[in-house]
Amino acid sequence: MKSTRTERLIRMASRFLVAPSRQISLTGLSEQFQVSKTVISDDVAIIDRSMREEGIGGICVERGRTGGAFLRPRLSREYRRSFLGSIAETLSQDNRILPGMLIHYSDILFNPGFAGPLGYALASDFADREPDVVMTSEVKGIPLAVFTAHALGIPMAVCRFRNRPSDGPAVAVHYPSGRGEVRTMFMGTRFLSAGKKVLIIDDFMRGGSTAAGMLLVAREFKADVVGTGVFIAASEPARKAVSEYSALLRLERGNDGVPMVKVQD
Amino acid sequence: MKSTRTERLIRMASRFLVAPSRQISLTGLSEQFQVSKTVISDDVAIIDRSMREEGIGGICVERGRTGGAFLRPRLSREYRRSFLGSIAETLSQDNRILPGMLIHYSDILFNPGFAGPLGYALASDFADREPDVVMTSEVKGIPLAVFTAHALGIPMAVCRFRNRPSDGPAVAVHYPSGRGEVRTMFMGTRFLSAGKKVLIIDDFMRGGSTAAGMLLVAREFKADVVGTGVFIAASEPARKAVSEYSALLRLERGNDGVPMVKVQD
Repeated sequence: MKSTRTERLIRMASRFLVAPSRQISLTGLSEQFQVSKTVISDDVAIIDRSMREEGIGGICVERGRTGGAFLRPRLSREYRRSFLGSIAETLSQDNRILPGMLIHYSDILFNPGFAGPLGYALASDFADREPDVVMTSEVKGIPLAVFTAHALGIPMAVCRFRNRPSDGPAVAVHYPSGRGEVRTMFMGTRFLSAGKKVLIIDDFMRGGSTAAGMLLVAREFKADVVGTGVFIAASEPARKAVSEYSALLRLERGNDGVPMVKVQD
Repeated sequence: MKSTRTERLIRMASRFLVAPSRQISLTGLSEQFQVSKTVISDDVAIIDRSMREEGIGGICVERGRTGGAFLRPRLSREYRRSFLGSIAETLSQDNRILPGMLIHYSDILFNPGFAGPLGYALASDFADREPDVVMTSEVKGIPLAVFTAHALGIPMAVCRFRNRPSDGPAVAVHYPSGRGEVRTMFMGTRFLSAGKKVLIIDDFMRGGSTAAGMLLVAREFKADVVGTGVFIAASEPARKAVSEYSALLRLERGNDGVPMVKVQD
């Protein structure tokens, strides 16, 4: 049955949005909706304009034999700034301060209403590097990493701090913690392989030892790390165990010594 | 600037899809797009028809002063069956069998291309019970729970097996493991409160002791559990520590003694 043009456009748009960064065949759309590929191409152009206007990203069309199109995430600067600003404000409230220059943020990351857009923001930042897999470490970084992976259309690999029978075979990697102890991380052998482009995503970076551990995991698998993105980076210590990373927010000590969170420019 | 009708429809549809189950103000849409509320209502009816046709769900409109509309997830029976069938087939492959009636499934749950639709399926099953929060336990259930919570437009609360300074204050609950030992679970005090309606989501249920532990956590907070949904339930032991739950898939022992996964009817 032929649907109306408007219905077809909404249905096509929904497929791009439900599975961002994943190719949808234009030939398949043309066959399913019983219209020519030229009509489908016009439809895609309209959807592209609407998504850009909405500040979500754009539709990329791959010409040639595969003939697919996909939504490439790119959050608008205005939305990004106001969204991160409101989260920084929430996190700076008195009732969130924990002992030891720590703040309570897990309710933000465990709420998909926040973690979803945060992952979309990180995906927008790193989409150009075309990662194959998002790597994170358990536990609090998982929702952020999974939404980043969702927006990038790629799988997630989780570094675990123990390995159990139900987790399957894994590679163990040893790395120094911030306090000089040696810690162990496990990565399931199914999740990574040589030459894969890895994007590291983590919730919080203080000294950067966990991120440095994840670099070692990638190296052990002969995979290439193409970027490291974190939700919050603490300004102390200034010197981190990793040289390159970008953070959405920064945790600083205010003039009165009280922790506060700012948007990273 | 006024946009064309088609562009407006696509932009409106994208907002329903990006934040399912969350109310969008019809008055707000009417003001932003500079058209009457009658026009917006007609638009919403078209979007509703397209989403139903697409097998995603429907748009619910709340009349009255708040005047909001939202996408209520309801996966079509056909898509659900074929999607779960393909996952059951993947999981039944020889190379996934682990010692002790276990199968390797974490790469499925860590891949948002699978975890997203699985969460959407669970959200479709439980939306009518109108939960306020999705509860899960670390680690492998988190992606499934977060996508279920995303589709239901509600936050997630994670039961942890240890409590550290950065996790903030928590309530500890003790529960018997399947082997008769006593285990401890922690739930952050920010995540739950009296009278909240809780949906428990977990990755794998063998004897049901973890789910039973989560019931104790909910009881400790005087919250009400409105349902328990799991990705895979093992057919052995038949008797579980919880009386009510529903599973998407079932792990059975075939005639040759080899584990296999079936879609739960």
